[in-house]
Amino acid sequence: MKYIFGVDLGGTTVKMGLFNESGEVLEKWEIKTVKDNNGSQILPDIAASINKKVAEKNLIKEDVIGVGIGAPGPIDDDGNIYGAPNLGWGTFNVSKTLSDLTGFKVKTGNDANVAALGEMWMGGGKGYNSIVMVTLGTGVGGGVIIDGKIVAGAKGAGGEIGHIFMDENETETCGCGKKGCLEQYGSATGVVRLAKRRLEKDDKPSILRNKDINCKVVWDAVKEGDEVAIDIANEFGKILGRGLGIIACVVNPQAFVIGGGVSKAGTIILDYIVDNFKETTFRGCKDTDFKLATLGNDAGIYGAAKLVID
Amino acid sequence: MKYIFGVDLGGTTVKMGLFNESGEVLEKWEIKTVKDNNGSQILPDIAASINKKVAEKNLIKEDVIGVGIGAPGPIDDDGNIYGAPNLGWGTFNVSKTLSDLTGFKVKTGNDANVAALGEMWMGGGKGYNSIVMVTLGTGVGGGVIIDGKIVAGAKGAGGEIGHIFMDENETETCGCGKKGCLEQYGSATGVVRLAKRRLEKDDKPSILRNKDINCKVVWDAVKEGDEVAIDIANEFGKILGRGLGIIACVVNPQAFVIGGGVSKAGTIILDYIVDNFKETTFRGCKDTDFKLATLGNDAGIYGAAKLVID
Repeated sequence: MKYIFGVDLGGTTVKMGLFNESGEVLEKWEIKTVKDNNGSQILPDIAASINKKVAEKNLIKEDVIGVGIGAPGPIDDDGNIYGAPNLGWGTFNVSKTLSDLTGFKVKTGNDANVAALGEMWMGGGKGYNSIVMVTLGTGVGGGVIIDGKIVAGAKGAGGEIGHIFMDENETETCGCGKKGCLEQYGSATGVVRLAKRRLEKDDKPSILRNKDINCKVVWDAVKEGDEVAIDIANEFGKILGRGLGIIACVVNPQAFVIGGGVSKAGTIILDYIVDNFKETTFRGCKDTDFKLATLGNDAGIYGAAKLVID
Repeated sequence: MKYIFGVDLGGTTVKMGLFNESGEVLEKWEIKTVKDNNGSQILPDIAASINKKVAEKNLIKEDVIGVGIGAPGPIDDDGNIYGAPNLGWGTFNVSKTLSDLTGFKVKTGNDANVAALGEMWMGGGKGYNSIVMVTLGTGVGGGVIIDGKIVAGAKGAGGEIGHIFMDENETETCGCGKKGCLEQYGSATGVVRLAKRRLEKDDKPSILRNKDINCKVVWDAVKEGDEVAIDIANEFGKILGRGLGIIACVVNPQAFVIGGGVSKAGTIILDYIVDNFKETTFRGCKDTDFKLATLGNDAGIYGAAKLVID
């Protein structure tokens, strides 16, 4: 049996997993992401943790196919990262650096793209080979997988679907500096923003009034049939359904896999997305499947491992 | 030297080319597209023309790598066409049928996708391996090429960028039945529509008034500095720039290659597209290159030949 290390590098912790070729995770652990000195310690720490695990398990070099790693930033097919402000990183080749430190073959991908690959391999997208993963979290991330392979893009910006331009009338600014990005409506923060906007619009009674609004509170109210909450869900679904309808016209995936914090509300979010999708997309794309992600925070380590198996 | 047949199947004529492996076209010819009896004669006619050329050139079977064909309809990676109303065709496997008729290996793709592959191989996209081709003709077609390979899509709807939903306030209906498709603004017919709309808006003097409006007339007026024509070009550029900006967030190509009748106006159309593109796309995509297509009506036979070489 051969082994693979899957590494999901985040701004606070590094999640790591030891996998076998069949995609079973044999062990999971985490280390801290030490961001001092422009993150110069991050890859050496990861290498040390891998080498320690190799020794602990009495693995020989030949037992290990390699190390996959997902990192937060634009990364191309060759493993070059074009800056990761979160980590203090500039532009360099992650794969080469980590390979020099471990002696193993290393493949690197953008964290959202890698999570998409993980969901396709062992999660909500299992059984498909062309999916678009949509992560509705604090922001909106995405990953495009065609024929089992990540579409990283010329400058690592493939799957940056959170910044699709959706509304020229938007007055508030997205984290990216533009106005009207998909992320401003489809993320957890976006749902809260839409909720506040709707609540300020009139005085219609709602269980949302006088509550601390967060994404979960909104969807709970939708489930209870609260009309104001349903308005919010409709607005969320309208923009997200249209956005995904556009994406379908570009790559026509077999399925969309929806993950991230917002998707914890369950299949009810699909009720609001799919109708708008069908209404606005090209007729040849109307039957695209919609699935919820299933791997949660482990999608990254799964996808990272899969990077190396490919 | 080995040979390839490239076939571009249109609603009126079938364009055919005999290529060598280096991408040189050695001969070009056309036959009529006979659409009687639900187009049942089309593939036999093509096969007969190929077999005749093989005999004429004294080629032996081993000299021919295969036949590539682009056809108007949604076609998946396996050569299945999901209906082509233009030809009277239903759903069947084009590659298998034409292979049975010729004895050669056959690869089939959607005509717009195949033209994109041709432009990447020997046209405006030469030197790139990931491009999005945008054909601004009577409608707007597209082709997405990633790592040298067509993104055909789950149901052959990859690259159907003419039907990206751009404007919910649109009152006129697109050929596809929806309202607000990119094609309604970016095609030759779209430019004429925008022109009529602008001219009706007020009485501002313009050399376009009292002329028969077509796409060329509008762009000629833009080149002469006509302010009303420039308004039209700005509207065209705004919607097209935004649309391509969205596409870039999905697949982040190295370049957009712009072809079709509208592009005959020359690089001036890029002046109106690129600024809007940069303004609305994700920052990591701003430096995407823009090129004009160069192969014209031959893009299809080039791309068809390239299908088989891959």
